Amino acid sequence: MLAHPGVAREPGAGEWRAAASSTPTLVRMATIGEMGEDALIAAFVPRLPVSDAELLGPGDDAAVIAVDGDLVVSSDVLIQDRHFRLDWSSPEDVGWRAAMQNLADIDAMGAVPTALQVTLAAPPSLDASWVLGFADGLREACEPHGVGVVGGDLSAAREIAISVTVLGETHGTQPITRADALPGQAVAVSGPLGAAAAGYRQLMDARRIDEETIGLFLRPRPRIGAGLEAALHGATALMDVSDGLLRDAGRIARASDVGIAITGADVPVHEGARRVADELGIDPLSWALTGGEDHHMLAVFPREAAVPAGWTVVGATTDAFAGVRVDGEAPADVGWDHFGG
Amino acid sequence: MLAHPGVAREPGAGEWRAAASSTPTLVRMATIGEMGEDALIAAFVPRLPVSDAELLGPGDDAAVIAVDGDLVVSSDVLIQDRHFRLDWSSPEDVGWRAAMQNLADIDAMGAVPTALQVTLAAPPSLDASWVLGFADGLREACEPHGVGVVGGDLSAAREIAISVTVLGETHGTQPITRADALPGQAVAVSGPLGAAAAGYRQLMDARRIDEETIGLFLRPRPRIGAGLEAALHGATALMDVSDGLLRDAGRIARASDVGIAITGADVPVHEGARRVADELGIDPLSWALTGGEDHHMLAVFPREAAVPAGWTVVGATTDAFAGVRVDGEAPADVGWDHFGG
Repeated sequence: MLAHPGVAREPGAGEWRAAASSTPTLVRMATIGEMGEDALIAAFVPRLPVSDAELLGPGDDAAVIAVDGDLVVSSDVLIQDRHFRLDWSSPEDVGWRAAMQNLADIDAMGAVPTALQVTLAAPPSLDASWVLGFADGLREACEPHGVGVVGGDLSAAREIAISVTVLGETHGTQPITRADALPGQAVAVSGPLGAAAAGYRQLMDARRIDEETIGLFLRPRPRIGAGLEAALHGATALMDVSDGLLRDAGRIARASDVGIAITGADVPVHEGARRVADELGIDPLSWALTGGEDHHMLAVFPREAAVPAGWTVVGATTDAFAGVRVDGEAPADVGWDHFGG
Repeated sequence: MLAHPGVAREPGAGEWRAAASSTPTLVRMATIGEMGEDALIAAFVPRLPVSDAELLGPGDDAAVIAVDGDLVVSSDVLIQDRHFRLDWSSPEDVGWRAAMQNLADIDAMGAVPTALQVTLAAPPSLDASWVLGFADGLREACEPHGVGVVGGDLSAAREIAISVTVLGETHGTQPITRADALPGQAVAVSGPLGAAAAGYRQLMDARRIDEETIGLFLRPRPRIGAGLEAALHGATALMDVSDGLLRDAGRIARASDVGIAITGADVPVHEGARRVADELGIDPLSWALTGGEDHHMLAVFPREAAVPAGWTVVGATTDAFAGVRVDGEAPADVGWDHFGG
């Protein structure tokens, strides 16, 4: 299964996959510096998912894929110790997250993801098993959706830096931006919020109360296809909740030049987040409003009757004010800055 | 012109562009940490080139571009102190290189580049002018080709890590891979080789003999469109010379299962490289054979008569041996490893 003989010969090298998904402790393999670029690529590429749209895969100057309709494209960076921690996330978790948050970006246009380009820069001292586990995580996240990794680049660096570009197609439909919501429309989310924030809090506190929310922080599980569903139900604005409901709703409000009135009691709070908050004696609503990284869809529909089953209406657009209000109040700023302290 | 008031107010902030292209010494601006993500993006995005194929540009969950034919896609990583040095390259040089080596990858399929996704991770202490100069370099390289930056991501990191994904389209033609060369065909290159290697040597030695080759090392200038030209002339295999003629010809030989016989005297050596080599008392042919980073096209044509004007025939494919030989001799291995010491 592993193309590199040096790896296949190593006793127990086959066991690391089973161990890695629940714990970051990996069976010792060669480092990527010891293994070398060619051998690493030879072991890495066969583990990657294959795109249904692939016409020519990795190995030439470029890959070739079929596109039905227009091309939809987005990119995200994940940097070690900033977007993930090696003591919290297994390499499979990091691969999963890198893929899933990008798939959500395509779904958030009402389009269909087809392929990823993945670049990975990492220290030569990194265990090669980490890189292979990362590939497995990419595959686990992508394969159910017919999405493949069609190309990329590997390089040495001082820290792990991952960049994923996701490609998708519109199938002739119109992409749904953040800019076309009108006043008097229904604002809804496709899933419960606050789970990732609850998971993050538990890892920060080193106190495990609810494994599901920890798992959802490490591996976000939005329903890919919810965005397309919103588009087919006539959504006028659409995005995924990556930076928190309030901040992201604010982006739709600004882009569409409407106000958004959110009813706090209607915001669906993840059950596990509620459990953790109860245990800690805090209000879980703040996690649902500001937590981010759940990656469920946030959409505006022309009227409540247009909201698909399984979605939850959390408020309405208005021309009575600008920005976002919760139960009539303008919330304190909840943003953060990716370069700030 | 700069969207961030804090920058526009800074005395002399407008001067840095003129200074930066010839020297890495920049007028002091805010650091990207001081400036903050939103202000940095507001200043960065307007400097980026706009793609002729762009339907929806940066700012939403994803960009949307039109694709005529199939999509061709490739990615490259550039890491500080590994792929560029801040004391050698201006930020414009780094932007130019990041764009150009990716444009060459699309041309090397006989396809037409249309758009880039660019992710940049950098230390918060980095001067914001570096990031804006980087955008200017991207623009200078892309604009003549109608290529734009349609999206990307910015992040903090310990070192500068750039990842570029380039998108192109086939216009219904068949992409040219490395795999379809047949024995008895003509091997040709689209431009003179060895310039980048000569420039690198001068910078390493801190001895400036020929400014043109130093400039070509910092800003490779392949003729984008040479690959498409090769495709239209019936090329059976095509790639760009990024890792040296011998190593790259070896890739075509392996992929196509042919041998490649190169005639050393026919390899076009860049005039400036010849001048530098003369001054240093060494043979410039080794730079032309193994130097890399010139990014001119290497193609196999069905017969010499099919080779376009301006290209130089450097050898022929054969079924008499495998791999690459120069004047009948198998060269010593000239490869290197991106993870090795």
